[in-house]
Amino acid sequence: MQVFKYPPKEDWVKLLQRPENDLSGLFSTVQGILDDIKANGNSAAIKYSEKFDGFAAKELLVSKEEIDEACMQISSNLKEAIYKAKLNVETFHEAQIVPERVVETMPGVVCRQKSVAIEKVGLYIPGGTAPLFSTVLMLACPAKIAKCKEIVLCTPPDREGKVHPAILYTASLVGVTKVYKLGGVQAIGAMAYGTESIPKVDKIFGPGNSYVTAAKQLVSLKDVAIDMPAGPSEVEVLADESANPAFVASDLLSQAEHGVDSQVILVTNSIELIAKVEEELEKQLSRLSRKEIAVKALENSRILLLGSKEEMIEMTNQYAPEHLIIAMRDEDEVANKITNAGSVFVGNYTPESAGDYASGTNHTLPTHGYARAYSGVNLDSYLKKITFQKISPQGLLEIGPAIEEMAAAEQLDAHKNAVTIRLNSLK
Amino acid sequence: MQVFKYPPKEDWVKLLQRPENDLSGLFSTVQGILDDIKANGNSAAIKYSEKFDGFAAKELLVSKEEIDEACMQISSNLKEAIYKAKLNVETFHEAQIVPERVVETMPGVVCRQKSVAIEKVGLYIPGGTAPLFSTVLMLACPAKIAKCKEIVLCTPPDREGKVHPAILYTASLVGVTKVYKLGGVQAIGAMAYGTESIPKVDKIFGPGNSYVTAAKQLVSLKDVAIDMPAGPSEVEVLADESANPAFVASDLLSQAEHGVDSQVILVTNSIELIAKVEEELEKQLSRLSRKEIAVKALENSRILLLGSKEEMIEMTNQYAPEHLIIAMRDEDEVANKITNAGSVFVGNYTPESAGDYASGTNHTLPTHGYARAYSGVNLDSYLKKITFQKISPQGLLEIGPAIEEMAAAEQLDAHKNAVTIRLNSLK
Repeated sequence: MQVFKYPPKEDWVKLLQRPENDLSGLFSTVQGILDDIKANGNSAAIKYSEKFDGFAAKELLVSKEEIDEACMQISSNLKEAIYKAKLNVETFHEAQIVPERVVETMPGVVCRQKSVAIEKVGLYIPGGTAPLFSTVLMLACPAKIAKCKEIVLCTPPDREGKVHPAILYTASLVGVTKVYKLGGVQAIGAMAYGTESIPKVDKIFGPGNSYVTAAKQLVSLKDVAIDMPAGPSEVEVLADESANPAFVASDLLSQAEHGVDSQVILVTNSIELIAKVEEELEKQLSRLSRKEIAVKALENSRILLLGSKEEMIEMTNQYAPEHLIIAMRDEDEVANKITNAGSVFVGNYTPESAGDYASGTNHTLPTHGYARAYSGVNLDSYLKKITFQKISPQGLLEIGPAIEEMAAAEQLDAHKNAVTIRLNSLK
Repeated sequence: MQVFKYPPKEDWVKLLQRPENDLSGLFSTVQGILDDIKANGNSAAIKYSEKFDGFAAKELLVSKEEIDEACMQISSNLKEAIYKAKLNVETFHEAQIVPERVVETMPGVVCRQKSVAIEKVGLYIPGGTAPLFSTVLMLACPAKIAKCKEIVLCTPPDREGKVHPAILYTASLVGVTKVYKLGGVQAIGAMAYGTESIPKVDKIFGPGNSYVTAAKQLVSLKDVAIDMPAGPSEVEVLADESANPAFVASDLLSQAEHGVDSQVILVTNSIELIAKVEEELEKQLSRLSRKEIAVKALENSRILLLGSKEEMIEMTNQYAPEHLIIAMRDEDEVANKITNAGSVFVGNYTPESAGDYASGTNHTLPTHGYARAYSGVNLDSYLKKITFQKISPQGLLEIGPAIEEMAAAEQLDAHKNAVTIRLNSLK
């Protein structure tokens, strides 16, 4: 990792730069596939599945037998771990339920705001070497709590047409309605437009490679909502001399192993810590199975030495990290000053992997600085808030003249008339 | 308006079709302007302002003197009306404040969800004949309640370089930080990238023509968040024989006067009501100043006669209207069954214009069926929800083994190691 000591503020923007995230170069290829899926449904989906995933499914839907078989393949230790994580995720997301708000803004004018589930949601779970069953948990548990009626899941099969059993087990445990063996752009297109076997959904969630991300962006322009824009994953560790260098190194590495484009940043005011963390990185790195990926990610990563705690907080809020670990003496005070971050891990015994799997918070979080304006996935991601108002004749007599005045000033006669005609009937 | 009597369900999709909302044809023109603004800042912004709005501002920022002058030009009646509306909007949006949630998901594992204001927001208010000062109210009041630090507003000036006084008055009343004389794509670009005089914001809100909408879509792909995708405005009236035909006609017309692409739908089970509403439409139309616009909008609009209340509700949830007026005998029962709508107006004395101006609900709402997945603008639109977790050594002993198990199953060694190294230190 490159080390920068006491960089002047005018250099911060450059030092905090992320890997470029411009997917527009993929748009025309991706749009072509989406258009084909929209026009030709299943047959197009299967064609691309064969081309890109090496498997031509006759049947996209995962059968009950396949799910039962998967459930038998999972060890009881893993089942227990997933169950524990599920309980915590449920507890935290259930606490996010908001009751209907009812407010009489003035006598006879009653306004309500009510949360209603998005009816159909689609979850995308990438394939590849690491089976991301934890993401199934993170995306399906809140959907269930929100009471979404249909929760469909698309994930690419391997070349034998199999979906990893941990994904199927978790999907069945958390109440996913249907699982389809379909990945990539074709899965996003199928959920956005619907095919003969896959229902059109109202919102699509989940991570993916740059093609999947580009597809989500394109369908979100007019067809369907998406969870959030996505970029490479990242962590920032904020640490002072009280931090444990071995823990810090392990956290930096657990982000670095995600992918070669992951970004890892250590911000500290302790020059001694830097040397110790570097030593630990070296030591721990050698033992990792995904060492090569981590080494590459560390090449884009940075250690930043700053002069004060205030500067450390300022830089953090400027960077707006997806994950932020705070290993500082006054960790709670610092945490309270964080205004831009996806999820924050406070103290020496709170590794990022706790939130990735089991603490209860969601691990689908805004990357690429999107934390300045976006929340991570939470219960609200599966709800829309509908407002209602009911005005009594007395209430309209109170508020009507103000509406007439404003509508007239906006030169919208018919808007005014809708009130006038009612007020006249009350005279 | 075309009338369809008892259409079979398989025809509903076609009957509920909206005007096409594909802006991709504008993307290359709009992207060119955005790129120019990004590269050349103010000078490019002023160039487009001259080209499209006929005014080359030397100074984009509206001065304190201009605002003071505007405040003197507004009648005290209008000031009073705006003030009343402001109080209601504030009351309803303040009721949406959610306290921080703190949950101990298991002993020693404390998770929190905290709402934090988006720091900088940009509001776009279109120019044109009708000065939309009510939209200033709707977009700035919740920003203020959320405690956004910077609320900037862009609006195109007229050919003399003036902004309508009602817009300036309202902006100053609700605490907009700065108002800039800049409209169209150039305003969206300036707020997305920042220029020498206009700050880069984190999220852009507000309505606009198709160029503005396309610009918002393009900048939202990677640079800045936006409130929601937008299409033409629309209303659905759900009415039975208890509805007042004159009121219904006035509501249909108040939507139709918005624009020639507005859509207006009447869904009823009363054949008698249809004739009476048609008669009223004729009568009221003749008196409207924006008659020509309304006539054109009515051409795309429909009256749908259905056989039962259940079908009326089903069709409504399928259409997912931006505005829904319910004028039925059992209006509350029907309202409770609505699952897809932006804002709902319940009963004969609740015209849409009440919510457009002054009841307290927000008038920036999801059009084009987006109500299936999107909320209208509300307090949350100005907040992001950050999660925090803090795990005690005891807590990590509890949850750690489950994390190790799951990380190992996902083949993410370093994720596992971040826990193992801590657990070992506790042994």
